[in-house]
Amino acid sequence: MKVTLLAGGTGGTKLAHGFALLPDDVELTVVANVGDDAEMHGLLVCPDIDALLYTLAGLLDTEQGWGIRGDTHTAHAQFERLGEPTWFRVGDADLATHATRTRLLSEGLSLTDATARMAAALGIGARILPATDERHRTVVETDEGVLEFQEYFVHRRQAPEVRRVRFDGTARPTDAVLDAISTADLIVLGPSNPVVSIGPILALPGVRDAMREAAAPVVSVSPIVGGRALRGPADRMMTSLGHESSALGVARLHAGLVDRFVIDETDVGLGHAIQRETGASVDVLPTVMRSDDDRAALARAILDAAIG
Amino acid sequence: MKVTLLAGGTGGTKLAHGFALLPDDVELTVVANVGDDAEMHGLLVCPDIDALLYTLAGLLDTEQGWGIRGDTHTAHAQFERLGEPTWFRVGDADLATHATRTRLLSEGLSLTDATARMAAALGIGARILPATDERHRTVVETDEGVLEFQEYFVHRRQAPEVRRVRFDGTARPTDAVLDAISTADLIVLGPSNPVVSIGPILALPGVRDAMREAAAPVVSVSPIVGGRALRGPADRMMTSLGHESSALGVARLHAGLVDRFVIDETDVGLGHAIQRETGASVDVLPTVMRSDDDRAALARAILDAAIG
Repeated sequence: MKVTLLAGGTGGTKLAHGFALLPDDVELTVVANVGDDAEMHGLLVCPDIDALLYTLAGLLDTEQGWGIRGDTHTAHAQFERLGEPTWFRVGDADLATHATRTRLLSEGLSLTDATARMAAALGIGARILPATDERHRTVVETDEGVLEFQEYFVHRRQAPEVRRVRFDGTARPTDAVLDAISTADLIVLGPSNPVVSIGPILALPGVRDAMREAAAPVVSVSPIVGGRALRGPADRMMTSLGHESSALGVARLHAGLVDRFVIDETDVGLGHAIQRETGASVDVLPTVMRSDDDRAALARAILDAAIG
Repeated sequence: MKVTLLAGGTGGTKLAHGFALLPDDVELTVVANVGDDAEMHGLLVCPDIDALLYTLAGLLDTEQGWGIRGDTHTAHAQFERLGEPTWFRVGDADLATHATRTRLLSEGLSLTDATARMAAALGIGARILPATDERHRTVVETDEGVLEFQEYFVHRRQAPEVRRVRFDGTARPTDAVLDAISTADLIVLGPSNPVVSIGPILALPGVRDAMREAAAPVVSVSPIVGGRALRGPADRMMTSLGHESSALGVARLHAGLVDRFVIDETDVGLGHAIQRETGASVDVLPTVMRSDDDRAALARAILDAAIG
């Protein structure tokens, strides 16, 4: 059973973990957002890929929801002494990840191959595919100017109102990504920010077409529950971009692309409207993942609903 | 009073600190060996420049004699998880230094300018000049094969016998280095390994000529005391390369280049032979630097002896 999951950020990563935890013969491929990527201290930082690597390797600092458990910040203090910009606080173990990735790329590996190498070293069975090997950065136009994504997200703490989101570059998805979509038995848009986590992947030319043409059912899991994002600025961003901050708003963004929408039990009242507006099926499930069991249960329920 | 000190390794760095500690109007320029440089995790590591930066900024881990006081090794553990080579154990703060340097170089700065930038950020008054901005790596031919310097020094713990030392590349000294030699009031070859710390600097085309032509007296401080290196493999290396492991052996290497030899009180018996063989003056001084006061006192004594 080949599951291809599009993910970025916390929710998508947790669901990836859920699929990875299933005892079944699930062959998981995660297509990871790279719109969040940034150079820090001359090193390539891929926050969404790292969240997947750390989560699937059991290294994630689950308290803070990102980074590596037990990480230290001694390098950060030295960066400060050296007068380097330090608003992006890189952990020491994190720095090793970024250095390793940057070295592999400088040796000529693609981001896809570098990620595969690192995932294998960390003992990860799932396949993590960067959405593209090319530069494909999310740029946020805000009421305080045009900002690179990490500048908006970390440095400015998502304070500016987002007026438009676009992507820097002319990237194409990798063949591996298109192949993972077309050969999947199930395609899932994870409960990730639809604008800046799933959006950058869907913006790559050919990805939407590949999903429409795929034989597999396409399922979208809403990251908005009861009108609120469980984490991050997805709700505010939806609103300021003129979308409704709800599971219905998310469904509208994915209409025509998706066969089944998974919404939380809290949002059961929206099911009918989603069905009517999009023509897709709706599965009402407990989508809030507090524990590893929750993650695996949601992955299982999605599989059962979509494949039976 | 312009002092130009050639240095690499522990002894030369301590003497640089001694000159920096002098209350006088000493304008110190340290010409740093770069033969020890190596790429680790895709980052440029310059051990001798770093030792100078850390020592002159008051950051050095004086217990172990290298690295930054209080450094942690969290990145190292992550490098291990990622299957990276870890025989060169990089501290976390150290990693920040290497990343910063590598970034500055990738932005087009010379090693000289990158070093100046980092030294300024750390509040260092002395000028630290890499001997060259080009690749100039020490290669060690041993009875166990040809080794890069750090491979020999760190990975193999200096176990192989050194049969020949050469330098990789066709580097030229920077203009700043040649200028620092020709405009100095005093030139000092620090008590550093004559083969792999001072040797790589002297091997750069034009450096010996600049020293011979300089108006300033040239002083060489022996790193061999009582026939033994105070630290490191200088004594064994001298012997295996066919030199005498003594202050006399060091003096012979620098004969014709040096006006005054500084030898330790232990070696007072060698003074006459050194004078006779090299035609240079000999100053017998306490050269073992155990404390900061020792460092400043040696720097002062060298100044007094050479300049008066």
